[in-house]
Formats: sequence, C-alpha cells, structure tokens
Amino acid sequence: MGGKRLRPVLLLMAYNLFSDEIEKALPAALALEIFHNFTLLHDDIMDKAHMRRNKPTVHQKFSDNSAILSGDAMAFLSYRYLMQLQCPSDQLFEVTQLFTETALKVCEGQQYDMDFENRQDVTEEEYLKMIKLKTAVLLACSLKSGALLASASPENAQLLYDYGINLGLAFQLQDDFLDTFGNQEKFGKKIGGDIVANKKTFLLIKALQEASESQKKKLEEWLGKKEFIAGEKIETISGIFRNLNIPEITEEKIDSYFIRASKILNDLPVEESKKRALKGLSNNMLKRNN
Amino acid sequence: MGGKRLRPVLLLMAYNLFSDEIEKALPAALALEIFHNFTLLHDDIMDKAHMRRNKPTVHQKFSDNSAILSGDAMAFLSYRYLMQLQCPSDQLFEVTQLFTETALKVCEGQQYDMDFENRQDVTEEEYLKMIKLKTAVLLACSLKSGALLASASPENAQLLYDYGINLGLAFQLQDDFLDTFGNQEKFGKKIGGDIVANKKTFLLIKALQEASESQKKKLEEWLGKKEFIAGEKIETISGIFRNLNIPEITEEKIDSYFIRASKILNDLPVEESKKRALKGLSNNMLKRNN
Repeated sequence: MGGKRLRPVLLLMAYNLFSDEIEKALPAALALEIFHNFTLLHDDIMDKAHMRRNKPTVHQKFSDNSAILSGDAMAFLSYRYLMQLQCPSDQLFEVTQLFTETALKVCEGQQYDMDFENRQDVTEEEYLKMIKLKTAVLLACSLKSGALLASASPENAQLLYDYGINLGLAFQLQDDFLDTFGNQEKFGKKIGGDIVANKKTFLLIKALQEASESQKKKLEEWLGKKEFIAGEKIETISGIFRNLNIPEITEEKIDSYFIRASKILNDLPVEESKKRALKGLSNNMLKRNN
Repeated sequence: MGGKRLRPVLLLMAYNLFSDEIEKALPAALALEIFHNFTLLHDDIMDKAHMRRNKPTVHQKFSDNSAILSGDAMAFLSYRYLMQLQCPSDQLFEVTQLFTETALKVCEGQQYDMDFENRQDVTEEEYLKMIKLKTAVLLACSLKSGALLASASPENAQLLYDYGINLGLAFQLQDDFLDTFGNQEKFGKKIGGDIVANKKTFLLIKALQEASESQKKKLEEWLGKKEFIAGEKIETISGIFRNLNIPEITEEKIDSYFIRASKILNDLPVEESKKRALKGLSNNMLKRNN
C-alpha cells in the first residue's frame, strides 16, 4: 500500500546503533507504524482528504464511521504491540510513557494545525511549534525508543531524541518547500497544492511577514478569492515568494535544522561505521549528497 | 456534567474488598472514566446523537473534528493516568494489558452495533455477544483492575471479572427493557426511543424470533414505515411485545444474569461486611431490593 515506513526504520536504526538483536525491537517498530497510520486515518477525515498514497482514503472508500472506529482500534493495537516487547519492565515503562506523551503531543499539533486554517496571523514561531508537535516529536520518539530498548544511556537516548526533532523540522519544512518549488515527478504529488488550498505553510507565513504593503495586499487579495484558475494563483503567489527570496530563506532554515541534526549525530559517542545507515537515511530524506 | 461514574466506583469498590488504601487506585479509576467518556464522544458522532446527559453532545456543540480529536486525546490521557499508578511493575503491566485488550473489545462491540443497524437477521446470540463487548467487558475490566491493584489473588480477580460480565449483561438488558416498559420519570429518558429508531434490542430480536407469521408481518410492516406517528408505532409494537410475553422473557433473562452475578459475589472468599457496598450498588443498578 505504499508509505515509507520511516518511523519503524528510524526506531530499528537507532536500536542498531547499540545492539544487533533488532528482532527484539520489532514490536515497538510495529507499534509506531500503526500509531502513525491511525493518525493518518483520523487526519484525513478532519482534512476531508480524498486521496492518500494514490488511493482513496479510508473514510472516502468506506465511511467516516469506519475510519473513526478503525483508527481508534489501531491506537489500542499500538499499545498491544508495545506490551509484547520482551524487555525489562523499567524499559517497557519508559517506552510506553514516552509513546503516550508523544501521542498526546501529536493530538495537540493536529489541533493547532486545524486552528491555523481559520487564522491569518499565524507567526513563524507558532508554525514551528505546530510542526514540531505534529511531525517531529514522533520521529524523535521512534529514535529514542529504539535507543532505550537497546539499553543506551539516558544521555545517548536524549541525543537521538534531539536529532529526531531537528530532522523532523527540516523534513517538514522541505515538504513545504517542495510543494511549491519541487519537481512534480520527484515530489510525487501535484505542485502548488498548498497554495491552492491557502495552507499556512512556512513559505506563506514568511512571505506575509517579509512582504511590502503592495505585495501583502496582492497576497491577501489572492488568498481571499473564492473563484480562480489554479495555475494562475500558483504562478502569482510563487512569483511573489520568489521576489521575496522565500525559496532561499526556506532552504537556509532547512539547512540550519539539518546541520544541527548532523552535528548531534556526529557527537553521539558511537563507532562511526554504525552511524552510516542513519546518516544515509537522513541524507536521503533531505536529498543531500553529503 | 452528570454521569454515574459507574466504572471508577466499581474499580474502587473492588479494590476496597482487599485493601483500604483506595487513594492508590485513583489514577486507574480516572483512566477508566476518561476512557468511557472517550467512547461516548466517538459513539455519539457515529450514532449522530444530539443529546447526552440532557446536554448537546460534543460533536453537536463544537464539531465532528473536535469530537474526534478530543476523543483521541482522552484515549491517550487514560494511559497517562495508568502510568501514574504507584504500584509494582508487574501489576502495572497486567492492568495496562487488561485495559488495552478491553479497549480493543469495546471497539469491536461498537462495530457489531453499527453492523446490526443494517441487518434484519441478528440472532439473540449475536446480540448478547455485542453487548458483552460493548458494555460488559469494561465493567468487568474495572472490577478486575481494582482487584489486581489491591494484590488480590488471580482467582479472586477473575471472579470479579466474571461478576462484572454478568452484571453488565443484566444492566444492558434492563436498559433495553426500561426503554420500552419503564417509567419515564424513573428512567430519565423518553420511553419508546428504541422502538421509534428500529433499534435491534433484545426485545425486538426475541419478538421476531417468537412471533407468529401474522405478528412477524405486522412487525416488519412497522419497521419498514418511513413515515409514522411515534406514539402509534410505540403502542403497536409494544403491544405485540406484550402479546408475545417479551417483558416476562426479558425479565427472566435479566434475572438469570443477576443471579449468576450475585452467586459469584457470594462465593468470593472475602468477609461478608466488605461486600456490602458492591452488593448495594449492583442491587441499585438493577433496582432490586434484595
């Protein structure tokens, strides 16, 4: 059915930094992937999304009720998998608690995301907080859970958490960037969707912040149009973005998080050869060659 | 905001059979009550229910999205409370696992309940399985959790679970009975709601099973009517129920579960004086004076 399985892969790679018996971490990897898919089922209802991974969404194909209830069951299934971990009880407690607190943060992030739809004054700081809660904490939780289950020290587990936060922020900002300035074939979705939907992305927030009076007026005029030709709206707004150097500003922001993430991974006191898989994955996520 | 707080009360009463330090069980009592309220939020969306406890439901007052997301957060909040229990780790594991498996059963029960809406051939056995999953297992889980946290033996914890299953079945069947044959003031909701909504209750399932050809035809005719006067439908269908002795058959069924529950509680090897609160509550739930 597609999907990158990013969270279980991150969990297993983090585990593998400290231990080779990765089979032992599989139940936690499953728990994280099922939890993530539960959030997709419910988010797609809330966002009225019709397609996911090039297929109709669950609520679209079956019904809202099926998507609500299947999502609920998947949330509890995640806990069933966590309970199957064969590990010391203090590790199980720590991982289950981290998972629970992360799940609450993800719900909070989704609420902010919905609140932002009806607001025109979202600040950069608020936006970064939202994507941290909605996206980054779950990547961080995956990495830290892997470390904890492999009996890493609390300090190393925390380094992996911080690495995940920075990686997650860079990843989400890149998603914003590619939605407007990406290559349609490589990106895999239609370019300009965020602009058409007036989504409060980093690009739009930054543009509204940097715009001159006349540019701001033009942006707001297009944001307020009920009827428009999609291509024309995308061209006009992305043109304003370019005039304001939003692509460069966004790439700098992505770089700054990516560099922070890389620095944390470099500082992690683990043999260099063991870090190769994780470095390869994060370079790949952010399409870097270094 | 109303509500009987039945699940936390059952948990604390079961705990109190074996230990006096009930403060220690409070986080679990909170977890069970919050979980139950999470199911109400989501069930009310799925059932398109407008009122709950004489107030507008959450999805009605706010939005479907708010009710979905708040419900999700409440499910995870339940786990946060469970994690706050100050008890040995094997107890915490057992209670969390029981809670998780119970939550999955409750989701399963809700799915059966929705499936039954579109079916005319639900059997008594299927109906009893549905209410066991949707209602009884959570009461049983509350009681067993209380026992486990008070370090009761596995045998005694299981007896309380079985007691809860029988009590829950009796309680749900009585709810079916009172919806048609209760006293409006004592019952607290409008009489006949299940009949108006064609709900597949024990009464209707039993009536369709016991009916003569002509009675069955008449029942199906009324079930198929798109337009009708509510009072007339209630009077006709409850009249058929009476002709078929459905009130007596239902009361016998309630009695049989209540007697089984009482027998289990009697057999529980705990001082008689300690059982008084639980006996009082279950008599009260089923409006018995013995």
